[in-house]
Amino acid sequence: MKIDTFIIKLNHWLTGYYKCQKAINIMLNKLNLFMKQKLFFLLLIALAINSQKSVAQDKIVHDAEYYILEAQNGEKWAQDDKSVDAKLAEFRKKNDGKSPNIIYILIDDIGFGDLGIPELNAIRGYKTPNINRLATEGMRFARMYTEPSCTPTRVAFMTGRQPHRNGMGETAVDIAGFGLAEKEVTIAEVLSESGYNTVHIGKWHMGDIKEAWPNHQGFDYAAFPIHQQGQLTIFNDDAANEEVTIGIGKNNYDDKFTLDNWFRPDASHMVVGCEGYKGENIKEVHMEAGERWTQAKYDEMNDRYQAQTIEHLGKLAAKDEPFFLQYWPLIPLTGPRATNAKYTTPNGGNYVEEMKRLDGWIGEIMDEMDKLGVTENTLLVVMGDNGHFTKYSPQSGFTPMIYRGGKGDATEGGVRVDAFVRWPGMIGEYEIVGDMVHVSDLFTSIARFADATDKIPTDRIIDGVDQSALMLEGETHGRRDHVFIYSGNSMKAVVKEQYKLMVPAAGENAILAKFYDLFRDTREEYPVSTEVGAWGGAEFVRIMQRHNQRMELYPRELPAFGIPYEGIDNLRPESKAAVAAFLEKQSAASK
Amino acid sequence: MKIDTFIIKLNHWLTGYYKCQKAINIMLNKLNLFMKQKLFFLLLIALAINSQKSVAQDKIVHDAEYYILEAQNGEKWAQDDKSVDAKLAEFRKKNDGKSPNIIYILIDDIGFGDLGIPELNAIRGYKTPNINRLATEGMRFARMYTEPSCTPTRVAFMTGRQPHRNGMGETAVDIAGFGLAEKEVTIAEVLSESGYNTVHIGKWHMGDIKEAWPNHQGFDYAAFPIHQQGQLTIFNDDAANEEVTIGIGKNNYDDKFTLDNWFRPDASHMVVGCEGYKGENIKEVHMEAGERWTQAKYDEMNDRYQAQTIEHLGKLAAKDEPFFLQYWPLIPLTGPRATNAKYTTPNGGNYVEEMKRLDGWIGEIMDEMDKLGVTENTLLVVMGDNGHFTKYSPQSGFTPMIYRGGKGDATEGGVRVDAFVRWPGMIGEYEIVGDMVHVSDLFTSIARFADATDKIPTDRIIDGVDQSALMLEGETHGRRDHVFIYSGNSMKAVVKEQYKLMVPAAGENAILAKFYDLFRDTREEYPVSTEVGAWGGAEFVRIMQRHNQRMELYPRELPAFGIPYEGIDNLRPESKAAVAAFLEKQSAASK
Repeated sequence: MKIDTFIIKLNHWLTGYYKCQKAINIMLNKLNLFMKQKLFFLLLIALAINSQKSVAQDKIVHDAEYYILEAQNGEKWAQDDKSVDAKLAEFRKKNDGKSPNIIYILIDDIGFGDLGIPELNAIRGYKTPNINRLATEGMRFARMYTEPSCTPTRVAFMTGRQPHRNGMGETAVDIAGFGLAEKEVTIAEVLSESGYNTVHIGKWHMGDIKEAWPNHQGFDYAAFPIHQQGQLTIFNDDAANEEVTIGIGKNNYDDKFTLDNWFRPDASHMVVGCEGYKGENIKEVHMEAGERWTQAKYDEMNDRYQAQTIEHLGKLAAKDEPFFLQYWPLIPLTGPRATNAKYTTPNGGNYVEEMKRLDGWIGEIMDEMDKLGVTENTLLVVMGDNGHFTKYSPQSGFTPMIYRGGKGDATEGGVRVDAFVRWPGMIGEYEIVGDMVHVSDLFTSIARFADATDKIPTDRIIDGVDQSALMLEGETHGRRDHVFIYSGNSMKAVVKEQYKLMVPAAGENAILAKFYDLFRDTREEYPVSTEVGAWGGAEFVRIMQRHNQRMELYPRELPAFGIPYEGIDNLRPESKAAVAAFLEKQSAASK
Repeated sequence: MKIDTFIIKLNHWLTGYYKCQKAINIMLNKLNLFMKQKLFFLLLIALAINSQKSVAQDKIVHDAEYYILEAQNGEKWAQDDKSVDAKLAEFRKKNDGKSPNIIYILIDDIGFGDLGIPELNAIRGYKTPNINRLATEGMRFARMYTEPSCTPTRVAFMTGRQPHRNGMGETAVDIAGFGLAEKEVTIAEVLSESGYNTVHIGKWHMGDIKEAWPNHQGFDYAAFPIHQQGQLTIFNDDAANEEVTIGIGKNNYDDKFTLDNWFRPDASHMVVGCEGYKGENIKEVHMEAGERWTQAKYDEMNDRYQAQTIEHLGKLAAKDEPFFLQYWPLIPLTGPRATNAKYTTPNGGNYVEEMKRLDGWIGEIMDEMDKLGVTENTLLVVMGDNGHFTKYSPQSGFTPMIYRGGKGDATEGGVRVDAFVRWPGMIGEYEIVGDMVHVSDLFTSIARFADATDKIPTDRIIDGVDQSALMLEGETHGRRDHVFIYSGNSMKAVVKEQYKLMVPAAGENAILAKFYDLFRDTREEYPVSTEVGAWGGAEFVRIMQRHNQRMELYPRELPAFGIPYEGIDNLRPESKAAVAAFLEKQSAASK
């Protein structure tokens, strides 16, 4: 590397602000020798000039669009920040100098309007009284965006980063040998470093390799299944018997033509629930060698996670330090009906019944919080991870109602979810805010509430913006007016204010690219390609260009790869065989 | 046929229950002379036996399905009736012996979820604070069904009868020479006969002939446009200039090829707003001969109706008798934008802005009710008349959000609307009831509240069932589990409980007729033709057969026909010419 390039890079590093390397390179190529000879001198000047700016190095690195908003709203934000700081200081003073506890409940496959709106409960024929109560006790984000499926949303929350940045944009169902990289900094690590006790219970779904697991990603203790409901409730023999799944399970076909016994997965051979402590190996629980995994065991697993959540809530509340308790239930997602003893809603849907059960559990947690005296000093967050699993419409009982599409789709139905935050005395009661929020914003905001913003890494783009002012000051105090909707590493849509561009596929006529007005057309059924696109087309292209340019500075990374199940102490023989088969299949192409 | 069989059948007739006249005729033809000679004697015996039951002849005549529910729920209903009677008696005792006042506000083209749900306000980018407040002060019908367009819904409310029974199933836009027949008994007549003072303000839209007008249909006073918003805000020159309407208006085309000057309607030549007293001729107001009708005049008309509502509310409240005030606003339906001075919602839609204006007006009415001291003794009903006008999606700002389709459609989006009733102390606060209700049920229920059930005619089918128990006793006390969805005289769909059958069109495969589960699939996108149709197919056919059989007993009738505008004192010359042209065109086919 030449000295001039180095100096420029150094300068860049010192200012901490992004810039276009290409433009700089062109500039540098144009510099004459005389200029180059003076570089060392210039470096000294730059260091002097940037002595103040160099503090900015520690600032969170955002995506381009953020800086455009900051340039226009920075003064208002600074005022809000003062007010937020004062409120947080006041809270800590009252709370023995401690930051609030955090409880984060993330529900699978729930679209906007499923929870917390009694009128919509009524037209669907079920009730969620506990979550409806929660809705009146705290704030509803009316425009909470997630990623369009489970793993990406969980990664975005845990890291504050959209998963296309760290290779976690895709969802794995069975043994896959990859996961969230150790070098990612999770909210559990941020809080743990700031003195929080941290526990994770329930779904994790960010990899089957050791470094990806919650007890290696910042949690003191974790109880979680290695995989997800695909294995646990859709691949089991009961599901196969009801033809929820086809082609797997015992006694569902005559295998006389089978040559490849590694082709069809066997849920019972995969690892199920595990438990373990920070940095240690984990243990599989609740399965003996040779045992079959069943829907009854899935139900027991769900009951266990609820019981463990209550148990750990008590333990955490008894300690001196603040806590971060993360509970990611597996239900309402469920496969076969046969093992469910009772259906009690007029709706009668399989998921709806499970949702009713989960609503009761959330009520139990809120009651337990009251009993333990932690309601007032805890930020409680309850939300969905993505839209409906439309494949299970209508039998699940949940079919997209307000937005179009569901899980996996770039329409609002895929990424708009119910989301509630409660923090009595700090966040208003029954507030409904129309400001845009992305799930990654919780990472940044929770860090702020925990006085841990300085633990957020500044060497990578953090997509989450600080929404603490929105929560503490109310509607119109949000700091986001845009979101990029990805599927894997592919950008599918861009939302700015109420306007949405569906990114045209290759070969599609860009002049007729589909724009939607999300206020006037919530279901994205009436494109305003000329009415909005006429002025918005060029502007949205620039938004995407800025976003992409920024990725040249901070390129995408791959996830971590490794041997599945390493670090599980009591691996069953059939699971060992399944890993061996996986590795054999992995190497087949390069033989 | 044996004499005992005959007596039983005769007895059945005397008790006032429905029967098949054809069967009786056949029976009678089979009677031998001997039997016939004894008939008079037998009739006397039967009359004696049935002396008490014969009172039942005065009972409301319902459609077939009602009697199936009554057979199973009659005892519970009788208990509810006792409780309702006691509550009404108690109310009248406290209210100087008087029945409650009734205020009925019917809003044009509002789908379910547009009003009274702050969460849905937020995702659409506007607020209806006054109606949201109303929602918390009274009961929301979560399953209020209307007819799929303006005129039919208004007829169903006014007469308690689905408009296919009285020829009012179609909606007329311009001069048409027909309307609601004098022989129909309206709720205004029922209440008027029971001592109520009655006033109608705003849209009427049930005909351009004298006998159809509100002051000839039971109202002491009425201020109303003869036609509807098609003329008033869509046909005007401003709308034509914005190309909301094409082909009409001044200076919008070169008429050099025009031979037929009667082809395109001229809104300014049609009669606009009229006012008049019971039984008298009416007068057109606010238009001079030769004047052009404009959007500004439409706005003034809306302001006037609001002012008149407030004015008459005061006058009615000052009188000794209870009152029935009907206010049917024309907005939010509106055509051109240019004349609207300000847009104040983030949504920005034309209708949405008008809805915000109307919400303020409804707040004004509620405030005025407080001021006049009539809040406590008034049943206030606010609801939509049918779903969205989807042709104006998305520019109106209202696009179907929860249900599929809108005005004119047999999907739920056409017929499910926001509906609220408030009666402090009698109807619970912020109650949301999932029981099915049809707009015609208000006819029967309001009559009950007014102690005027005996004024309901018993010589025709009344589709409205008494839902007073639902309102006063709460959820699950409703008396309807079905609705027939018509377009004109054509049955499009049948709903029973949460199941809906889209009536197959001619030539469609009946085995695959589309059934929907409305709880699990609110948008009717996933037919359950086998899952529900397998058992429901035969049952729904029987439901339709019973309904059709009943129409053989009580056949459909035509509307009243007449000379348009007869009975208007100050008809402008251009309106006279328009009538002459209409009559000439009407006779052209038979020349």
